[in-house]
Amino acid sequence: MSDRDEHYDSLETRDDATRERELAQALPRQIEHAKSASAGFAEILDGVDPEQVTTRAALARLPVIRKDDVMARQEQAPPLGGLNATEVGQMARLFASPGPVYEPQAERDDFWRTGRAFFAAGFRRGQVLHNCFSYHLTPGGWIMDGGARALGCPVVPAGVGQTEQQVQAIQQFRPAGFTGTPDYLKVLLDKADELGTDASSIERALVTGGPLFPSLRQEYADRGVRVLQCYATADLGLVAYETADADGAANPGMVVDERVVVEIVRPGTDDPVADGEVGEIVVTLLAPDYPLVRFGTGDMSAVLPGQSPCGRTNMRIKGWMGRADQTTKVKGMFVHPRQVAAATDRHPEIAKARLVVEREGQQDTMTLVCEVAGGDEALANRIAESLREACKLKGAVAFVAPGELPNDGKVIDDQRPQGDG
Amino acid sequence: MSDRDEHYDSLETRDDATRERELAQALPRQIEHAKSASAGFAEILDGVDPEQVTTRAALARLPVIRKDDVMARQEQAPPLGGLNATEVGQMARLFASPGPVYEPQAERDDFWRTGRAFFAAGFRRGQVLHNCFSYHLTPGGWIMDGGARALGCPVVPAGVGQTEQQVQAIQQFRPAGFTGTPDYLKVLLDKADELGTDASSIERALVTGGPLFPSLRQEYADRGVRVLQCYATADLGLVAYETADADGAANPGMVVDERVVVEIVRPGTDDPVADGEVGEIVVTLLAPDYPLVRFGTGDMSAVLPGQSPCGRTNMRIKGWMGRADQTTKVKGMFVHPRQVAAATDRHPEIAKARLVVEREGQQDTMTLVCEVAGGDEALANRIAESLREACKLKGAVAFVAPGELPNDGKVIDDQRPQGDG
Repeated sequence: MSDRDEHYDSLETRDDATRERELAQALPRQIEHAKSASAGFAEILDGVDPEQVTTRAALARLPVIRKDDVMARQEQAPPLGGLNATEVGQMARLFASPGPVYEPQAERDDFWRTGRAFFAAGFRRGQVLHNCFSYHLTPGGWIMDGGARALGCPVVPAGVGQTEQQVQAIQQFRPAGFTGTPDYLKVLLDKADELGTDASSIERALVTGGPLFPSLRQEYADRGVRVLQCYATADLGLVAYETADADGAANPGMVVDERVVVEIVRPGTDDPVADGEVGEIVVTLLAPDYPLVRFGTGDMSAVLPGQSPCGRTNMRIKGWMGRADQTTKVKGMFVHPRQVAAATDRHPEIAKARLVVEREGQQDTMTLVCEVAGGDEALANRIAESLREACKLKGAVAFVAPGELPNDGKVIDDQRPQGDG
Repeated sequence: MSDRDEHYDSLETRDDATRERELAQALPRQIEHAKSASAGFAEILDGVDPEQVTTRAALARLPVIRKDDVMARQEQAPPLGGLNATEVGQMARLFASPGPVYEPQAERDDFWRTGRAFFAAGFRRGQVLHNCFSYHLTPGGWIMDGGARALGCPVVPAGVGQTEQQVQAIQQFRPAGFTGTPDYLKVLLDKADELGTDASSIERALVTGGPLFPSLRQEYADRGVRVLQCYATADLGLVAYETADADGAANPGMVVDERVVVEIVRPGTDDPVADGEVGEIVVTLLAPDYPLVRFGTGDMSAVLPGQSPCGRTNMRIKGWMGRADQTTKVKGMFVHPRQVAAATDRHPEIAKARLVVEREGQQDTMTLVCEVAGGDEALANRIAESLREACKLKGAVAFVAPGELPNDGKVIDDQRPQGDG
């Protein structure tokens, strides 16, 4: 099973007991390293005893850090908010992504670990990769470049735009593979058709950065390109990746990378959801230079139970299911998922809840819909009072039976007509 | 003199005898390698005995290969025209520059050798570099990135455009240095002034890819930025670089890189000019992966006699003095410098010549102005006949005294009003 032809390394096929034992060793070391080498995490994890963080449950008690926290720290302590463990002057490259949020690359082969995803997508040594992520200011191009280079694939750093020159380069270099956003490959293939240049060398693709609709994946397959996805971010690099069946088509779900710990939490909170529920992807890196502990990605997914048929044994997630940031404006005031959580957390009777925002005439209204077994007017009044305190806004409370709210990760459900609010 | 603080390595301060002795050893090895590992150079250098190529004079008898030859070979034998010695599948990256002409990068630290130029410009380990060359399709960004990384400088791969985000990133990362085209730094500094962001961290710059006018260099100095130039191309990487005096200002000329052999030839020919004359820069790489032998850059320069005051002992050139490609259309027919050379080569009486193209009324005219001692109507007629045969066009012949033609490398001097021809 750990044959190099089938798997990138033997980590992928560890049995559960081995993986958890190795995690129990790695986690305390990583927390200790983050605390001792990074001023930011020394502060964030103040009071945490690394020796106690040997399980996923113990990890789940640490605070989640989100992009706005990172941005605030970076503004206060430029350039990296003290979250880096390797000194800025010893980094390889430095990036500025929209936000702005700043990310480092350390001097390390395949720093963002995408080689594993390329391998799973069928890429092999010596095959040319046409890379359509930008290398400028943001790390996208570099994230994929590093993985391809680790595999031994020559890369054409094509970036975005200049499509005529790109299809000319494709005809000249005959790349076996493409990487870019899910829809950009179609732009290139269509341009090649239009100009009569040959893009038939492209047989596989690894895409990320947006949804890949099944119809588009089928269109690519019909044009001779097997397309697999991975989930990666500028801060973390690779988080999870699709694997291929014997025909090169995608197996269900995405397998989690071997150097990260993935949790799914209730959006806006630090608390894991029940297994299978949709929530925000929170990632802890087991990597030294930028040792993010419980980084809230703002992206939604859910655990997919069971193991992948490809033989990789790690946890699977369902892939990207939208953005978790459900902050909205009600009557001109921001309402954040963490405020909703603050209100519901006071009432253990609530199994699950969501704030529904609507518009009646010219007026915003909000109703906290709670899964409650039983429940009476007195409870409803107490919850309404908690909601008013947490949000500084009045709202109604409604009860539904446990299990009636959809499993879509929504904590705030904005049902107002588009363009309002 | 070879103190690491002053020079990049001890190669820079070799005495002439050592440099020539080491060149005499390196040249035959390089020619042998090019012939045996590259199908293209096996053909181009067919019949050449590598053992005989131990001197610059012997090198000068080999054919010059120019960009149009490279493009023709690449079209015939994609992707690299067989000029590469390392297999395409083992390259690190592949590029498509305008032309189109295709270039490789092999897996080798500082493949294009710009670390030496950054060092001479005052860059040191740990200093952040803001890199404004593009990394997309063309190798410019990578050429400079590799040198900075070899020195241990973290790089912000900024590319071209997005100037607001760029100046924000400059404020955040406080780079000590800039690299880009000579005028782009001004775009950034002006934008920073306009937005009130702080770009004062930038104290030095290494620029290339266009002329740096003395007034602009002075403006940069007045704004606190010492700007040095280098001469590099997408095919060759670093060819020559400016060095700094004790105050960080540029010494005269550019010192030739230690891994190249530079010759100056009459534009469009294979023949070296007399020392000090302006001509086309022809470069032989002493590097294994893409072993260009006598590559005609199409750029003009001249040897600057004497040694640099910085202690570097290698040959100096005057820097970039314009484009050598003087191909023009006369009466609708292309006239190429090599045709002019073909005409003049038949007449040993001609010390130097240039074809002057003018317009009289609606008519193109051309006159071959020849430096000739003495000279009579019979010689003029014979030269005119050679000119007609070489160019398939009639032209006049005029004589001037030896030394009267300007030393500007011009073989074809197109004096027609702009936009014509």
